[in-house]
Amino acid sequence: MFDFTIEAEDSSCKARAAKIKTHSGTIETPVFMPVGTVGSVKTLTPDELKDCGAEIILGNTYHLYLRPGTDVLEHFNGIHNFISWDRNILTDSGGFQVFSLSELRDISEEGVYFKSHLDGSKFFMSPEKSMEIQKSIGSDIVMAFDECVNNNLERSYFEKSVDLTTKWAERCKNVPLQSHQNLFGIIQGGTYRDLRKKSAEDIVRVGFKGYAIGGLSVGETTEKMYEITDYTTDFMPEKAPRYLMGVGTPEDILNGIEFGIDMFDCVMPTRNARNGMLFTSRGKLHIKRAQWIYSDEPLDNECSCYTCRNFSKGYLRHLYKSGEILALRLNTIHNINFYLSLVKGARNAIKRGCFAKFKSEMINKMKTGGDNV
Amino acid sequence: MFDFTIEAEDSSCKARAAKIKTHSGTIETPVFMPVGTVGSVKTLTPDELKDCGAEIILGNTYHLYLRPGTDVLEHFNGIHNFISWDRNILTDSGGFQVFSLSELRDISEEGVYFKSHLDGSKFFMSPEKSMEIQKSIGSDIVMAFDECVNNNLERSYFEKSVDLTTKWAERCKNVPLQSHQNLFGIIQGGTYRDLRKKSAEDIVRVGFKGYAIGGLSVGETTEKMYEITDYTTDFMPEKAPRYLMGVGTPEDILNGIEFGIDMFDCVMPTRNARNGMLFTSRGKLHIKRAQWIYSDEPLDNECSCYTCRNFSKGYLRHLYKSGEILALRLNTIHNINFYLSLVKGARNAIKRGCFAKFKSEMINKMKTGGDNV
Ligand SMILES: [Zn+2]
Ligand SMILES: [Zn+2]
Repeated sequence: MFDFTIEAEDSSCKARAAKIKTHSGTIETPVFMPVGTVGSVKTLTPDELKDCGAEIILGNTYHLYLRPGTDVLEHFNGIHNFISWDRNILTDSGGFQVFSLSELRDISEEGVYFKSHLDGSKFFMSPEKSMEIQKSIGSDIVMAFDECVNNNLERSYFEKSVDLTTKWAERCKNVPLQSHQNLFGIIQGGTYRDLRKKSAEDIVRVGFKGYAIGGLSVGETTEKMYEITDYTTDFMPEKAPRYLMGVGTPEDILNGIEFGIDMFDCVMPTRNARNGMLFTSRGKLHIKRAQWIYSDEPLDNECSCYTCRNFSKGYLRHLYKSGEILALRLNTIHNINFYLSLVKGARNAIKRGCFAKFKSEMINKMKTGGDNV
Repeated sequence: MFDFTIEAEDSSCKARAAKIKTHSGTIETPVFMPVGTVGSVKTLTPDELKDCGAEIILGNTYHLYLRPGTDVLEHFNGIHNFISWDRNILTDSGGFQVFSLSELRDISEEGVYFKSHLDGSKFFMSPEKSMEIQKSIGSDIVMAFDECVNNNLERSYFEKSVDLTTKWAERCKNVPLQSHQNLFGIIQGGTYRDLRKKSAEDIVRVGFKGYAIGGLSVGETTEKMYEITDYTTDFMPEKAPRYLMGVGTPEDILNGIEFGIDMFDCVMPTRNARNGMLFTSRGKLHIKRAQWIYSDEPLDNECSCYTCRNFSKGYLRHLYKSGEILALRLNTIHNINFYLSLVKGARNAIKRGCFAKFKSEMINKMKTGGDNV
């Protein structure tokens, strides 16, 4: 089951509010998907994710394939059962990690031989293999296997990569998935407009339930990332979800929404939380700073998360400085809540027809505080 | 405010069920106090502790003195406010850590100069200083400052230590605390029956709201610890709480209850949880073991904790092997729940007049499973 319904479109830009319905429930877009690499959004329980309003999380095929492995996931009848999460799950294809984390052995049109970053053991990944693994995982949204290229390489590499990604997308589409699963295609092409257009047209021709922009936020400037996103969405179908992979900061997400993106994922809110960096409505804040020692204020006066309802910056600083795990948990809850509230705010603004105002107010407010109060 | 009411006494041993009432609420005994060293029971929120049934937690004066420090605790009006915990808190005197963790500089009757284990800076601790710090912390139960001696030293050391501890207890009693605070005395004397008797009589003569047995579980055999506990409670007042400090395993706690102990604390359930060792009604279990890879059973079929209600051993093993923080949280919830359920079970058995049967059944059952299913 897969249904995508647009509820509202902004008149001044490409932003839209929509609903995606799958077997595992409804996703209201624009949506941010917290990253649950190995089957846990780091430090959080499924209940805490629900309290933050998460309707979908992301799992990493590469990590889940290496550990716990498909035999375990199949034994447990898929990842939802295994991790006790009954809402939506999207899995990436494994491509990004195969190309960035592991030691590559051999790339050919057939697929990729790589060595595990965990113990060096040798594996093979291909479009068919990626589909097979994601079928075992049982995620609701499955990503096609693509080649990820660092944006500092030269053009000839991207030309070949766009063609390979299209061939791989066709092969992915030919692999039968579970009946509740939905396959998304990925557009590549680096920072070259003509290659992005070609890739988008090729991938749309193959035909998928949704379309993603891959290969951004991997070395290019923010301006370039915005330019290419804005350009590429023009060649993506209006009536299917658009997903900008691995992006980004709160500002990046607001801009992505303006360019017509519906779905985002990024490790930033969770990873930065564990490093003591908190996102607030008035900007970034580093909890370890001495200025918070005596603060009995919450992280963000406008936030209604569990952390902000119960704890002061003074206590959070103490926990963080003391190396307490509770610090990492409470920081993560806040950052995830911030990201999910941000996209929910954008969605409401789009429905009320005032997204442009919402966006500029949010971006301006995020410059007024944080560490600099 | 301090009220201690005995509700039931076992006819076959010294076990009793009682209630302690303080400004911060009621504690049903026998009770186990989870250790919250620096103001957080490691990995858990206050709400999770309440879900496990915790009525009192322990804070470490030494650690809280070094970080966040009394200026911060006073600014926040005490630890309850600072950490968002409105139930009871007991603080130790700091003595144990001064003698075990820090680099000692100089011990005299006046007090102890020591160097912080954090940064080597120099501090002074004395009976008056310990009271002053605990007054700033604002704990409900305050422990007198005592000298802790390793049980491998020779007798002459313990003779002097018993006298010093009594003198220090008198000085502690002379320091005014906050009106809601209640001071407990500590009995020393190592593994020498006559010294334990002398120390108990001396400390009882000084007069406190409750009495603790210190200096056990620090190097002596389990048999000796049982013998000295059983012997010492005979010289402790019937009508005041008895606290066995730093003990112990589930079996130790059941034996302590039989010997007339009302209160226990130990880092074992929290520390072992973080090392992947779980206590269950059928014995200890190491979650990293390969035997749990495909297990879709909870840690303990008789446990009703959040972890056991929602997650399988297979998933917990995967989280632990993957180094996920969620593993440490879920393990800790289970172990704390196990300890709190154990003392609650003992309490109910005492009230029903069948503690001996409960104890032997529990101890026998704990030999039938765990890793050895
Ligand atoms: Zn918050
Ligand atoms: Zn449990």
